[in-house]
Amino acid sequence: MIAFITDWGTDSYYVSSVKSVIKQINSKEEIIDISHNMSKFNILSYNHIIYRVSKEFKEGTIVLAVIDPTVGSERKAILLETKNPKYYFIAPDNGILSMVSENYGIENIIELNNKKYHWGNSYTFHGRDIFGSCAGYLSKNIKKKYLGDSISKIVKIDDKMPHLKDDILSAKIFYKDSFGNLETDIFKDYHSFFDKKYNYELFIMDKKYKIIFRDFYNEDDNQKLLMHFDSSNFLEISINKKSASEFLKINNYPTFIKIKKVF
Amino acid sequence: MIAFITDWGTDSYYVSSVKSVIKQINSKEEIIDISHNMSKFNILSYNHIIYRVSKEFKEGTIVLAVIDPTVGSERKAILLETKNPKYYFIAPDNGILSMVSENYGIENIIELNNKKYHWGNSYTFHGRDIFGSCAGYLSKNIKKKYLGDSISKIVKIDDKMPHLKDDILSAKIFYKDSFGNLETDIFKDYHSFFDKKYNYELFIMDKKYKIIFRDFYNEDDNQKLLMHFDSSNFLEISINKKSASEFLKINNYPTFIKIKKVF
Amino acid sequence: MIAFITDWGTDSYYVSSVKSVIKQINSKEEIIDISHNMSKFNILSYNHIIYRVSKEFKEGTIVLAVIDPTVGSERKAILLETKNPKYYFIAPDNGILSMVSENYGIENIIELNNKKYHWGNSYTFHGRDIFGSCAGYLSKNIKKKYLGDSISKIVKIDDKMPHLKDDILSAKIFYKDSFGNLETDIFKDYHSFFDKKYNYELFIMDKKYKIIFRDFYNEDDNQKLLMHFDSSNFLEISINKKSASEFLKINNYPTFIKIKKVF
Repeated sequence: MIAFITDWGTDSYYVSSVKSVIKQINSKEEIIDISHNMSKFNILSYNHIIYRVSKEFKEGTIVLAVIDPTVGSERKAILLETKNPKYYFIAPDNGILSMVSENYGIENIIELNNKKYHWGNSYTFHGRDIFGSCAGYLSKNIKKKYLGDSISKIVKIDDKMPHLKDDILSAKIFYKDSFGNLETDIFKDYHSFFDKKYNYELFIMDKKYKIIFRDFYNEDDNQKLLMHFDSSNFLEISINKKSASEFLKINNYPTFIKIKKVF
Repeated sequence: MIAFITDWGTDSYYVSSVKSVIKQINSKEEIIDISHNMSKFNILSYNHIIYRVSKEFKEGTIVLAVIDPTVGSERKAILLETKNPKYYFIAPDNGILSMVSENYGIENIIELNNKKYHWGNSYTFHGRDIFGSCAGYLSKNIKKKYLGDSISKIVKIDDKMPHLKDDILSAKIFYKDSFGNLETDIFKDYHSFFDKKYNYELFIMDKKYKIIFRDFYNEDDNQKLLMHFDSSNFLEISINKKSASEFLKINNYPTFIKIKKVF
Repeated sequence: MIAFITDWGTDSYYVSSVKSVIKQINSKEEIIDISHNMSKFNILSYNHIIYRVSKEFKEGTIVLAVIDPTVGSERKAILLETKNPKYYFIAPDNGILSMVSENYGIENIIELNNKKYHWGNSYTFHGRDIFGSCAGYLSKNIKKKYLGDSISKIVKIDDKMPHLKDDILSAKIFYKDSFGNLETDIFKDYHSFFDKKYNYELFIMDKKYKIIFRDFYNEDDNQKLLMHFDSSNFLEISINKKSASEFLKINNYPTFIKIKKVF
């Protein structure tokens, strides 16, 4: 199984080019599209997204993640095999695998530099020529070591969020879904900060909003701004049947926020 | 075959989570996406859409329809087996299966309450944890009765449209396609009302438009507003090579309309 | 393998109707979506797109291309088998196969007029009833000659671009990808016109822009307007990490351009 995510959109044929190459290498391999339409986020956002979505897949899945703003530069193309759970991430070495490497542990890193397993040598379509091609060969049980040289570390991005100080939790919103629900980087570690019996204030830029904590969207039907821990155990900001992103006028990701408990 | 429709958009990874679960339960099962991008319509619109699209599929197809604005509330998750044709609808019991139950007849209804066949127990991701999971098990020929308790009826919505009185046909537009063609709930029962030799007036809100009846889009190349019965035998309002929805400034679905025959 | 492209959008269920028919005819056949979201381009643009994307697929692929603004009119439905490489294009005979026929050569043309291999006889859904259905039967190795009558020629569109005169190259932009990169019809034949050591001027409508030639996007990180030959050997106009289409305010395709070398 190859789980495939890019930021290429579905208004071009690029995604199909990669699938065509994979199927030419391994016609039996199943490819599931994660998404190609999660806007053009930066590395910081995709670092979270790739971590969160990878958990939805079975161990052994090849996660082909081509978010590659610096294609054509010196950045490496890599295969990261994680320890627990074991996944195979094929991606540019630009920081988007920081969270998975920290949370799952690193078993192996291969730089995908063996041209024998590349499909072509374009300057700008590494998605097809390197990442897609190597994913195809890996799915066909080509030994990892044939794909290139072992390397000892990956590029990591510095992402210190979230942190709690004096009853204020600083965090970020790193994407919105199509309902306008806002996904934060606040994991269940901070569960004890949230309680239905308290009120909260949400600070975004220079604005302040009242917000409540609930178990799910529909618990209050009165369209207040609310927070809940979603199905992947991250805090989500939403309004029942309305778009929180529109209400809060958030268009850029990540957006930095502060949440204050009101006693 | 599982035919899969949601209103989740393709700018999130939710659809892939459900597919991942289905494939983990039954790796051989084929999943066809109906659409995940038909806006956030209300129940009244999806009731029509699910009926119309289901006819495109072979008998025995599992239609996984997760339009679920009240996820997390008391609404049931159900499997509806229809009589003729035989289909298996897996959906929230919120009214979206009203038309298929009336038109195809009800063979069986199961409340999907056997947690043994759920994937998880999130508050808000029943698409993955209940609907997708049960679709996977059903496709693997798990007996229906194992999925939960038999129940005797489903929630139905009251949808009296269309109706004809004094040469005025009252009806509704329940969605537009990406060309801006407008789909109505006027079925071929009303075929005799329409004739190429008459003129018609279309009333939307407080506006009135001239409109003609034709066999297909291209019959007149002069960009008039026209009506025709489309490939699923429902009346469609369109303008050849133009967007009727833009011309008529329709943004909400359903929109109620009246059509008057002019002698 | 069927590679499937339409201009229907993914906000309707039409694409799934065609897939359902193909799978009912040949349940084993793999279908890869090229795109259904490349806007509503005209024939001139899709003529290029189909040529460019077809090269991404293996010989023998069935390219199902339903861009059909005149559905319901007298235009034919055809199967075009090309010579080198051998592909099977199933499409309306409206000019969109001009470039593939010129570049690959014509082996056979069949008018898809044998109703035995049609799925239905709607006026407006030939995508399902003729094109999709015949693609399904062809994939199942039904003999081509059974699908209809041999004909001797296809409709071709007159597309004289690009041409070079007095150090000015006249050409067109025929689509943008979701990054806002602009794809031109300038193929590598004109490679010698471009050189990193010269400066260039780009003329669009009555506006003039400075533009440079580079090997790839990322070579200059200073967000100048630049041109490079992309992975399919056509000239692309882009701005590193920015949208060239927004910068140049291009919304219609094709858009005619001139590029002047400055000594």
